[in-house]
Amino acid sequence: MARKAPRNTAQRIRETALALFNRYGEPHVATTQVAGELGISPGNLHYHFPAKDGLVSALFAQYAQSLGELLPAAGGVRNVEDAWFFLHSLFERIWAYRFLYRDLNLLLSRNRPLETGIQRVLHAQIEAMHALLDGLGCGGALQVQPPPELATSMVVMLSYWLSFEYARDPRHALETEGLQATLLHGAAHTLGLLLPYLLPEQQSHLRGLLQAYEPGAPA
Amino acid sequence: MARKAPRNTAQRIRETALALFNRYGEPHVATTQVAGELGISPGNLHYHFPAKDGLVSALFAQYAQSLGELLPAAGGVRNVEDAWFFLHSLFERIWAYRFLYRDLNLLLSRNRPLETGIQRVLHAQIEAMHALLDGLGCGGALQVQPPPELATSMVVMLSYWLSFEYARDPRHALETEGLQATLLHGAAHTLGLLLPYLLPEQQSHLRGLLQAYEPGAPA
Repeated sequence: MARKAPRNTAQRIRETALALFNRYGEPHVATTQVAGELGISPGNLHYHFPAKDGLVSALFAQYAQSLGELLPAAGGVRNVEDAWFFLHSLFERIWAYRFLYRDLNLLLSRNRPLETGIQRVLHAQIEAMHALLDGLGCGGALQVQPPPELATSMVVMLSYWLSFEYARDPRHALETEGLQATLLHGAAHTLGLLLPYLLPEQQSHLRGLLQAYEPGAPA
Repeated sequence: MARKAPRNTAQRIRETALALFNRYGEPHVATTQVAGELGISPGNLHYHFPAKDGLVSALFAQYAQSLGELLPAAGGVRNVEDAWFFLHSLFERIWAYRFLYRDLNLLLSRNRPLETGIQRVLHAQIEAMHALLDGLGCGGALQVQPPPELATSMVVMLSYWLSFEYARDPRHALETEGLQATLLHGAAHTLGLLLPYLLPEQQSHLRGLLQAYEPGAPA
């Protein structure tokens, strides 16, 4: 029991920092605010995380692990409905750590583990998109073989859709009430990139899925 | 003649700030460094630009003007070669002000003119992509009508391609020696999104253009 309390405090610090970083952006949150929100002393927080970058690295490691659990499922995609649920799940995980993408270039310019880690994440996501496209091919869902650079384009869309929504509407886009609309538009635009490669009936099925989730096409 | 010297100093400050912001990222450059690089006193710089945000706003205004001069040309695009040169020109202008995109969310969270200005820029770019797609239709270059959200996806690719290259290779991607490769890959991935909508001979022509600029397909 003696060892349990510190572990719980570290966990609570990570959760609170994640919520504040997501809400206000990491550059706008000081570790003293994290301590204040938790009702612990700055010294106690400093004991667990001597620098804010350590907190960012710990949260990035959680994100990378969460992605690592999901990405292998890309290979099991056989039709547009599988692809839709896979991409929606991927966007949920990106959303949960959206502060990383909001100020990615600044964060990675200051944090060596993040600099190398995000390269591995982008590479793993591109591989997953190749697996997803191969899976759609195996499932007989494609009418034309997509070019290999489509996987890269899909990862750009996945990685920067939230930033784009933020730039279009910085006062609302990344608040939790925008969650469903943002995930839906992100998944729709990512999946939309492979629309013309799908068989006509898979294209109709995709349009039906998008309509079912939101009447009125996203643009 | 008495009024000319101060104007030239303001112009030189803008040029030097732009070069330093592009090289190191705006958050990593202090106005004292801009003054030092120019060999003027911090007080002289302060006389022209009392705050760094004023400098950012002035550079953003130049960028918006530079875009405003180019975007109307989108409506004159009739085939894939026109589209290629248009997108390449657009990427050149984005590249010239790449610091804006490198830390866009941070910059707009601190700078109200940029917050509203970037929304106008994104909207104008989406309209330009619609005009480009309509122009390709008029020119008889399309085999299938693209869905309206394709214009939005193209703007996400245009706006975030440089960030993506930076995240993949932060120590080289935004240096001037990477200019040609970065512009080429960005234009290729943006134009690649509409590849399947083009007539087969336009698709071959596009592949030929890409090969002529760089043997070995980008991915």
